[in-house]
Amino acid sequence: MKDQAFVKYRKVYLSELKSFENVISKLFINDEPRSLYEPCSYTIQSGGKRIRPFLVLFSAKAMGGKFSDVYNAAIAVELLHNFTLVHDDIMDNSSKRRGRATLHKKYDNNVAILTGDNLNALAYEYLLKDVKNNAKGILSTFTQGIIEVCEGQSLDKEFESRRTVSITEYKTMIYKKTAALAEMCCSVGAQLMNANVKHVKALANYGKNLGMAFQIQDDLLDIIGKENEFGKKIGSDLIEGKKTYLFLRALEKANKDEKKLFYIVIKNKGIQQNEVERFKRLYEKLGVIEDAKKEIVHYTNIALKNLSALPDNEGKNMLVWLANSLINRTT
Amino acid sequence: MKDQAFVKYRKVYLSELKSFENVISKLFINDEPRSLYEPCSYTIQSGGKRIRPFLVLFSAKAMGGKFSDVYNAAIAVELLHNFTLVHDDIMDNSSKRRGRATLHKKYDNNVAILTGDNLNALAYEYLLKDVKNNAKGILSTFTQGIIEVCEGQSLDKEFESRRTVSITEYKTMIYKKTAALAEMCCSVGAQLMNANVKHVKALANYGKNLGMAFQIQDDLLDIIGKENEFGKKIGSDLIEGKKTYLFLRALEKANKDEKKLFYIVIKNKGIQQNEVERFKRLYEKLGVIEDAKKEIVHYTNIALKNLSALPDNEGKNMLVWLANSLINRTT
Repeated sequence: MKDQAFVKYRKVYLSELKSFENVISKLFINDEPRSLYEPCSYTIQSGGKRIRPFLVLFSAKAMGGKFSDVYNAAIAVELLHNFTLVHDDIMDNSSKRRGRATLHKKYDNNVAILTGDNLNALAYEYLLKDVKNNAKGILSTFTQGIIEVCEGQSLDKEFESRRTVSITEYKTMIYKKTAALAEMCCSVGAQLMNANVKHVKALANYGKNLGMAFQIQDDLLDIIGKENEFGKKIGSDLIEGKKTYLFLRALEKANKDEKKLFYIVIKNKGIQQNEVERFKRLYEKLGVIEDAKKEIVHYTNIALKNLSALPDNEGKNMLVWLANSLINRTT
Repeated sequence: MKDQAFVKYRKVYLSELKSFENVISKLFINDEPRSLYEPCSYTIQSGGKRIRPFLVLFSAKAMGGKFSDVYNAAIAVELLHNFTLVHDDIMDNSSKRRGRATLHKKYDNNVAILTGDNLNALAYEYLLKDVKNNAKGILSTFTQGIIEVCEGQSLDKEFESRRTVSITEYKTMIYKKTAALAEMCCSVGAQLMNANVKHVKALANYGKNLGMAFQIQDDLLDIIGKENEFGKKIGSDLIEGKKTYLFLRALEKANKDEKKLFYIVIKNKGIQQNEVERFKRLYEKLGVIEDAKKEIVHYTNIALKNLSALPDNEGKNMLVWLANSLINRTT
């Protein structure tokens, strides 16, 4: 993609992101009971890249639709994503997200459980507003996405207490926890525009592979990225003892002594801040940073290749831009 | 309803309940990951009256359907109900349900949160299996039912810390927390059989009013019922300081000194076991046991009256039997 086009689509995205934030900021502000809807409002006003709604919007546009045709569905996937974040934050006992107190810290676990449950139901409510034909198919895709996320989160928690996890198992987990939702967003955006099976499948595969690339990139940026705007430290995943792509791949490639070192990290559930640099060097030595980069390029290329099945139009261009933009991100 | 008919429908119910338990006992036993589906299986094998699935089955039969036409939908509402129980048990910090450890006690809060989330998604998955026409309408009704339950639970938690709650507010809460789901079950059962708007509305109203009667009966049985099979003590609601229909109605009718006494119960968040008899006598003196009985009869009569809009058939008879059966229950 040429620089000029890149700038153009970035402008479209930023302008649409502003509109989306404006809509989001007004949701639930008058709904009762406030004890339920005030935390719903707080949760969704978290900012961020809002990638999932844009997957819905761009996929619909790629299938000849307008953003307004699927705007409620775009809101729906963001509500759904926020439901999973709120519950995950309880499970992970996280106190901060994007620089703000997590919901269970701002209120309590009970409010966070119930707010998550309600956001999930509201996601269905919003999706249904945009459904005209094929409600059964669209709702099935949406529901399947949620089941995958639950299974993925369960695997993720299971892996925390396991000694070893293979790269294959790791990929199954991130597919379920992250990529399946991106796949669903694209599929739903296309289905809402009555796209044919071939196009739905192509867009779903684009979303799925973009999601895989996105998650491995997330793992990589923990080591080679910039500190983000909220002060998330480089090496946080290592400090928290997370079984990321880099960690598991390093464990695979390590010699006997290095393996011992990694097993100590697992046993201790993480490392100290001052050990991050040492592990970064070890990652470099083992070549796992290069491996991660290759995986990201691999999945991004499959994502882009799937778009070739689609007619050329601005929606498709935006999806190309999004994939390129994500691969070049630093936070 | 004649005794003979009552016995006949009770037999049908018991026989169908046995089949239902058999189906339920086999759900999710082979699904992966086991860390997610084992707790799903445990949760739903809780026994009980399974009233909600029977509302779906009987409503469909009343509209000319067969049980098999809506069997997945019947499973769906039971999954949904179990999702709400699992999350409510965390919020209420309950350790036992129907004589077994609650899910968050058997496992932990994380497993219980995730299991609830998955049961909710699985409920949609099962419902969708039985949807043929009007998916949008049926899914909207189902989703609205879940939103009401979330709002009802939020009000219920809000009321716990409030000094006073009016009977009107109490009724709004139990409508949302209990009756709306019964209303949804009947509406979905009818809609799956392509019932006309008049019949759907009549069945929904039957379910709604049955739900109201059921909840007030639940409050009443805490005082005048039998100890249940799991040893739930008489007066538990008073001991736990719950703002039941009887408590709130008693507070309304109490004189100045009695009001003081009730406010002390609220302040202390309950009474001692040995005070139950005293409060029972106070309830009798204030006539709130009679008031509760009148409300139960009132709502049951509205429920039954709504059935007069339906054609006479075995499905309708079963709904009549169910209403009569619930009004005469002792646990």
